[in-house]
Amino acid sequence: MNKLPNAELVMIPGGTLITKTPEEGRQLAMLIARHTIHNIQNDLDELKQGRSVYSVNPDSLTAASQVVALEYQTIAAANNYWRDQ
Amino acid sequence: MNKLPNAELVMIPGGTLITKTPEEGRQLAMLIARHTIHNIQNDLDELKQGRSVYSVNPDSLTAASQVVALEYQTIAAANNYWRDQ
Amino acid sequence: MNKLPNAELVMIPGGTLITKTPEEGRQLAMLIARHTIHNIQNDLDELKQGRSVYSVNPDSLTAASQVVALEYQTIAAANNYWRDQ
Amino acid sequence: MNKLPNAELVMIPGGTLITKTPEEGRQLAMLIARHTIHNIQNDLDELKQGRSVYSVNPDSLTAASQVVALEYQTIAAANNYWRDQ
Amino acid sequence: MNKLPNAELVMIPGGTLITKTPEEGRQLAMLIARHTIHNIQNDLDELKQGRSVYSVNPDSLTAASQVVALEYQTIAAANNYWRDQ
Amino acid sequence: MNKLPNAELVMIPGGTLITKTPEEGRQLAMLIARHTIHNIQNDLDELKQGRSVYSVNPDSLTAASQVVALEYQTIAAANNYWRDQ
Repeated sequence: MNKLPNAELVMIPGGTLITKTPEEGRQLAMLIARHTIHNIQNDLDELKQGRSVYSVNPDSLTAASQVVALEYQTIAAANNYWRDQ
Repeated sequence: MNKLPNAELVMIPGGTLITKTPEEGRQLAMLIARHTIHNIQNDLDELKQGRSVYSVNPDSLTAASQVVALEYQTIAAANNYWRDQ
Repeated sequence: MNKLPNAELVMIPGGTLITKTPEEGRQLAMLIARHTIHNIQNDLDELKQGRSVYSVNPDSLTAASQVVALEYQTIAAANNYWRDQ
Repeated sequence: MNKLPNAELVMIPGGTLITKTPEEGRQLAMLIARHTIHNIQNDLDELKQGRSVYSVNPDSLTAASQVVALEYQTIAAANNYWRDQ
Repeated sequence: MNKLPNAELVMIPGGTLITKTPEEGRQLAMLIARHTIHNIQNDLDELKQGRSVYSVNPDSLTAASQVVALEYQTIAAANNYWRDQ
Repeated sequence: MNKLPNAELVMIPGGTLITKTPEEGRQLAMLIARHTIHNIQNDLDELKQGRSVYSVNPDSLTAASQVVALEYQTIAAANNYWRDQ
């Protein structure tokens, strides 16, 4: 087993949901989604093997993008949708 | 590998969730959903191959439209549902 | 290929989320869900073929109705749930 | 084909999301979920055939109950969660 | 057929979404999720057969837990997240 | 059968949705998601067997992470997104 470094296991990288821009918020959403996976499966070898499967399966990509959409709902609300930007 | 141009990898094209109309908001929702996929799989050849599969599978189309629905929930809330339009 | 007419590709038919009644809001939710599919697959022949598959598959029908439920969450919130009706 | 009567095709039976009790709200959620299906597939014979399949498949039942959960989110919010009951 | 007793068919057991604690709210979420299933399939024999299948399938368990998560979103909001506890 | 200890069956460990930080909130979301599974399947042997299956299946991991995303929506809202942190 090839355990992920601890930095990859932080659940909310940066420790806050507040970001400067919608784009940074979106990057955080992706990061949170990925680190959730890391916390369920922390073996880098398994993750790489998994990626070779899901990254070429359109339904898997849709499912992954749905998780990002849900995380972004949370982050966007936290930032009042960056309305005062 | 045939990497997507950088413009296809911007996560929130235009950099804001605020749009003039519900229609523009919906177009943004679709764009955000697509660019999320691009950021998970950035090889245009794989994306084209994937499209040939999911675009003729009704369950895949339903799943894709669900992601757009979720993105639109966020964008519509950001715009106060364009109530003062 | 048998491309859909442009009217079928408008993402928010009527251009607003505001409707007079909960029933009209629900019809709009269904319309938006369908037009999202149209914007991903705009070949009427493929859509007809897809319909012959999903319309007789109960799990496909459940998945389709879930998308309508999500769109309706947005539309109902936009209309303050028609509380002052 | 054995088309459903029109009453089964009303999308929001009763025409309002407001109900007296949480229980009535839940019944409305189930009704709305069912009538959405009716509006996608209005042939009673197909619906009966589908029911014979999904009603004995636990994953299908879970998926159906998820749609009801989503409809109830909308109805409960519309009724301010019946807090002043 | 072995029909469930009526108490198992009440959709919102207790008749309210308001609970004293987050734990009680969670128990209500599980109960509501189960009673929704009961209202779609009220034959105890079928439910027992279904349980023997889904309870040993991790993807089925994940799907079931997602429904509970959605019901809990509603209940937690109804209780203002028990902030003044 | 190898029944889980009672502590693993508490639905909301700690008894509150309020946490000091977004990171702690996320850990609570994962814990709640896991304890929900425990309450549906409380046989440790079955859970271990299930884990050997889903933890190496990328689609299962995506589905699990979606449940965590939904639980986190609730917890983050309960904490006003830790905006005053």
